[in-house]
Amino acid sequence: MSFNTFGRIFRFTTWGESHGPAIGAVVDGCPPGIALSEADIQPFLDKRRPGTSRFTTQRQEPDQVRILSGVFEGRTTGTPISLMIDNVDQRSKDYSEVAQAYRPGHADYAYDAKYGFRDYRGGGRSSARETAMRVAAGAIARLVIPGVAIRAWVEAIGGDAVDPAQFDAGEIDRNPFFCPDADAAKRWEALIDAARKAGSSLGAVVACEAIGVPAGWGAPLYAKLDSELAAACMSINAVKGVEIGDGFGAAMLSGEANADAMRPGSHGAPEFLANHAGGIAGGIATGQPVRIRTAFKPTSSILTPVPTIDRSGAATEIRTKGRHDPCVGIRGVPVVEAMVALVLADQMLLHRAQCG
Amino acid sequence: MSFNTFGRIFRFTTWGESHGPAIGAVVDGCPPGIALSEADIQPFLDKRRPGTSRFTTQRQEPDQVRILSGVFEGRTTGTPISLMIDNVDQRSKDYSEVAQAYRPGHADYAYDAKYGFRDYRGGGRSSARETAMRVAAGAIARLVIPGVAIRAWVEAIGGDAVDPAQFDAGEIDRNPFFCPDADAAKRWEALIDAARKAGSSLGAVVACEAIGVPAGWGAPLYAKLDSELAAACMSINAVKGVEIGDGFGAAMLSGEANADAMRPGSHGAPEFLANHAGGIAGGIATGQPVRIRTAFKPTSSILTPVPTIDRSGAATEIRTKGRHDPCVGIRGVPVVEAMVALVLADQMLLHRAQCG
Amino acid sequence: MSFNTFGRIFRFTTWGESHGPAIGAVVDGCPPGIALSEADIQPFLDKRRPGTSRFTTQRQEPDQVRILSGVFEGRTTGTPISLMIDNVDQRSKDYSEVAQAYRPGHADYAYDAKYGFRDYRGGGRSSARETAMRVAAGAIARLVIPGVAIRAWVEAIGGDAVDPAQFDAGEIDRNPFFCPDADAAKRWEALIDAARKAGSSLGAVVACEAIGVPAGWGAPLYAKLDSELAAACMSINAVKGVEIGDGFGAAMLSGEANADAMRPGSHGAPEFLANHAGGIAGGIATGQPVRIRTAFKPTSSILTPVPTIDRSGAATEIRTKGRHDPCVGIRGVPVVEAMVALVLADQMLLHRAQCG
Amino acid sequence: MSFNTFGRIFRFTTWGESHGPAIGAVVDGCPPGIALSEADIQPFLDKRRPGTSRFTTQRQEPDQVRILSGVFEGRTTGTPISLMIDNVDQRSKDYSEVAQAYRPGHADYAYDAKYGFRDYRGGGRSSARETAMRVAAGAIARLVIPGVAIRAWVEAIGGDAVDPAQFDAGEIDRNPFFCPDADAAKRWEALIDAARKAGSSLGAVVACEAIGVPAGWGAPLYAKLDSELAAACMSINAVKGVEIGDGFGAAMLSGEANADAMRPGSHGAPEFLANHAGGIAGGIATGQPVRIRTAFKPTSSILTPVPTIDRSGAATEIRTKGRHDPCVGIRGVPVVEAMVALVLADQMLLHRAQCG
Repeated sequence: MSFNTFGRIFRFTTWGESHGPAIGAVVDGCPPGIALSEADIQPFLDKRRPGTSRFTTQRQEPDQVRILSGVFEGRTTGTPISLMIDNVDQRSKDYSEVAQAYRPGHADYAYDAKYGFRDYRGGGRSSARETAMRVAAGAIARLVIPGVAIRAWVEAIGGDAVDPAQFDAGEIDRNPFFCPDADAAKRWEALIDAARKAGSSLGAVVACEAIGVPAGWGAPLYAKLDSELAAACMSINAVKGVEIGDGFGAAMLSGEANADAMRPGSHGAPEFLANHAGGIAGGIATGQPVRIRTAFKPTSSILTPVPTIDRSGAATEIRTKGRHDPCVGIRGVPVVEAMVALVLADQMLLHRAQCG
Repeated sequence: MSFNTFGRIFRFTTWGESHGPAIGAVVDGCPPGIALSEADIQPFLDKRRPGTSRFTTQRQEPDQVRILSGVFEGRTTGTPISLMIDNVDQRSKDYSEVAQAYRPGHADYAYDAKYGFRDYRGGGRSSARETAMRVAAGAIARLVIPGVAIRAWVEAIGGDAVDPAQFDAGEIDRNPFFCPDADAAKRWEALIDAARKAGSSLGAVVACEAIGVPAGWGAPLYAKLDSELAAACMSINAVKGVEIGDGFGAAMLSGEANADAMRPGSHGAPEFLANHAGGIAGGIATGQPVRIRTAFKPTSSILTPVPTIDRSGAATEIRTKGRHDPCVGIRGVPVVEAMVALVLADQMLLHRAQCG
Repeated sequence: MSFNTFGRIFRFTTWGESHGPAIGAVVDGCPPGIALSEADIQPFLDKRRPGTSRFTTQRQEPDQVRILSGVFEGRTTGTPISLMIDNVDQRSKDYSEVAQAYRPGHADYAYDAKYGFRDYRGGGRSSARETAMRVAAGAIARLVIPGVAIRAWVEAIGGDAVDPAQFDAGEIDRNPFFCPDADAAKRWEALIDAARKAGSSLGAVVACEAIGVPAGWGAPLYAKLDSELAAACMSINAVKGVEIGDGFGAAMLSGEANADAMRPGSHGAPEFLANHAGGIAGGIATGQPVRIRTAFKPTSSILTPVPTIDRSGAATEIRTKGRHDPCVGIRGVPVVEAMVALVLADQMLLHRAQCG
Repeated sequence: MSFNTFGRIFRFTTWGESHGPAIGAVVDGCPPGIALSEADIQPFLDKRRPGTSRFTTQRQEPDQVRILSGVFEGRTTGTPISLMIDNVDQRSKDYSEVAQAYRPGHADYAYDAKYGFRDYRGGGRSSARETAMRVAAGAIARLVIPGVAIRAWVEAIGGDAVDPAQFDAGEIDRNPFFCPDADAAKRWEALIDAARKAGSSLGAVVACEAIGVPAGWGAPLYAKLDSELAAACMSINAVKGVEIGDGFGAAMLSGEANADAMRPGSHGAPEFLANHAGGIAGGIATGQPVRIRTAFKPTSSILTPVPTIDRSGAATEIRTKGRHDPCVGIRGVPVVEAMVALVLADQMLLHRAQCG
């Protein structure tokens, strides 16, 4: 319930600033006896890691995670799991400009308004670097719910969307955009290159699907599965919108068009004829795939000068130099997956608590 | 932290089923010394109350709230405020059909999957009747943040949107749709009438604006103002999407188009040249209007028979008779306002706790 | 997490003042499918009810509990259980004295210091009347952990202790003091009569034992079973001390004398040769009886005038007229049992969440 | 509210095992702008550090704390403060015995019963080594409430108590026992020496006083100041009892003897003629010194062989070799102070949240 903790039973707390010595997370409430080593976490961090293609920031952060507690002889003990990543690529650059002027779209002004001052180096606590720890924690969450498969992808960049008819899950990991449509991936290459060269940036939509969530996970009314997913995803840097199932599209439908009719399926569970609801009814999973979409705004750091004010309140202009992602939504893919995994692991434990 | 409680410091817990003897809420953490009586709450309940026009359900619930504790000599004492509304219009109808068959789009199947059985009368706990208590609690929340003005309206019904150029705040309370555009209100009359007569239903988009939120409310990283608003709104029955500021629209913009440039304003605070961010940066209020949009799916209760299964797993069909809102989004307006008020009151107290 | 809620998964929130229209509780997180009616709760309330002998206050509160939600066809549904008791014996007495002057030992001054004013009628929120709702919630908690037997008794009144050699569990319910030693019960009769006639009061020690708590319930480090029990019992009105097992006595022992040696028992579980630890090691149950002792101060309401100040800060004297328990510890017995039951039910669910 | 987190607004989470690479804590919710460096924390750790006299364990842990986040240019930023201490004195000893047999009085059996296995090296998570992080977090808490002076001392060892008439606060830091009575300190020297030579151990009582707690901190009913203090202190390793004010002594008093009469004091606040209540009424501070006593059991690790069972359930004997404190209560003094500081800092923020 504190400011930097997420979850109810399976909880994680993150700490660290972009340019401090390290960032970390403490995962508490993990069931005991789960096989866990750094090798279970690192691949997810590598997926999020910057500098792997020319389409993301050129910062080089190896992001090597270490487990400092909570694991003994290769298994979780049920006690807190401390994770840490050293910050290594902190350029000793001149931060005097960003220290003085507020970058529009960034948290600079809001942090100063709240706390009176801020750690301005690399964005400090508001840097998306924090999401590395979500990804690390999320890798552990996945192990808690082995029957659930969670997969996210980029659905649109700058308004250019994938063609659903071309959706190929196997394609997602074959291009630097987590794009399931090979044609769209080619188009995006040009889009991002252009944005990067112009010092501009683009927004993106990330879709995520969790398959294998058992009917019954979730809870009324303020621990609803969709409410938790919305909170989790909206807490990701740059996210401005969240949809479950058809989302805003459902607002345009009639009741008939939106009905997820059922017929007898296997094992006594129903077979659904549609999934407008995104796998959740009344805050509780129906057993269908859980579908969620998130909107990422374009990176606020751009080379075009933008009018702003400085700490004294005087007018000035700022252009954000440095190594930035032209489209933060891309590296948001593993972060969304992690947050979904973290919510589901927590909900699984909550469900087990109340319903045995 | 429990299933039916929302908030961190200013918290409320709701209880009650649609067809039980009463519904209620306990508001805890309210500051002492605030003038409060039923008369401060009732107008908001009246706004949500069914049966006030032919465009909402014809159930007649007077929804008279009583304050049972926490107020002494007309002021809040700082102790829990217990609110209760008796259920009076519970028709002794035959529930055998809904007891046996799962209504698609409703929580029936999910509740059974979770708990093994359910109170099927009128939807039980999953009924939108619970939102009356949110509205009541929200009325108290408003008193905690008197400097903040919160106003919601319906922005679109069934895909037919208001014309921003015709936006007239004064119009909102002059039609039964909370519609700020007199022309759109006329069109919606026909739309809803048609849906009602056909036993069908329509989705809607509800927009909400909070003016006067001071820069600094909110908190990184898992108590972000936008994250809390998303959780709050996504927990409302029938809501499937939430946007802050430009939301999914931001995902289509370039960084330049999305920048909220600043210039010197009055009292040392910046004047913003745009508000794509919806008044929140890094999870913290910027002092601009907080803007949020929510998507309501069409009412699931429709007269058209829909294929489904019964409790034994056998195929059947169901048509949902009874008195239902043809567009639940309309009565969602005061509920959205209440949830936004509840989040903001909580964030005000949280901010005061940490930052004095 | 709020001020008036207790528990993590199995949670209850109480509301109500001594002289308001009613008091109540909301129990959230209760597992579904448990048979429950008012008849399961009332006997525990009757045990706590005032006016049943001349040794407790002569107020007459029938304390009839009603269940307003969360139960359908005689079973818990998994949704919040709302409990309510109407206040009926509120004498329209003159409260002008207690409204103005602070009763020493009472919460009067502290409430005013905190909130600026208070509901002074009958102690308002600080009245022990609130404990009726703990007892009601505790009755439900017992049903969640049917294998655990919880039993409390008065161990000493005004320093006059029972003789352990005379301990007879069957005796506890045969006298108005919940005293397991028939001889002590006789002595206490005279003690209490004398105190009552003198308008004085006496302190008491209440002991409690929970048998059948499985090894493994509890959790390091800040959800320790003993830590939770201490918080629960110290939150009861008039309690000033809590001990687990030998408590302060253990501080006088050597390591050898305090060791709870083990030998092979049945079913693979150890048999313990002693239970100095009170059934808890490292915050986790060992499978032995959980033993807890609580110290109740003497009732603060006495007829002897005591120097005090009034709201203006001026010196005055106060003698507390009205109908008071000469020894609040006696009616504390069912309250201690309830709090122990509530902690154990919560810990059972927590254990099930993490450890399956 | 998770297992390894304490506090509501000012929260800390600890992690780490006795023989892992490090232990740590994350302090969240700290107000911004407080001057903080390692030098503010280290003196308290040094006070708790082992190996400083022959009366404590001879393990050598320098316990050098590092601050890894949340501080910028010497001041707290309002973001999480990560603290870490490397474990350096982990002897590569043979743990095969303790891995197999359960040490009576230790958490060995309970951990195995709960989690199925345990990190047995040095007690793992159940080691009192964790309390170093409480002391570190507590040092920060003190800075949040600069007007409050918190001081603990040992009041009795093995039943040999200090003489209240000889109480000299200046003496506490002049002997290795935190003893305020120079004569008692001499007697304890002999007591501890004897216990140490015999491989035995002794229990202790630690008293603590917080001066300067403003009237009004604390809250009914489940965030009572005394309830929080009880939870905090009972969560310390080896603590088996907690008293507020006169504690169990109050249970032996009459209402007259226990009354804390008042008369007009300075600044409108009352002057109290006694403090049986330990500075707390109705869960809220009265402005008097907050007084708390805790009972520490004797160290469970003793050289005398004790009957026990092994993991297979077979009978065996164990004597706990290694470097242990003959009286853990002594090093408990800074830990009790820390927990009291942590509760008070949290309550200050809670009070500020609700009451401005």
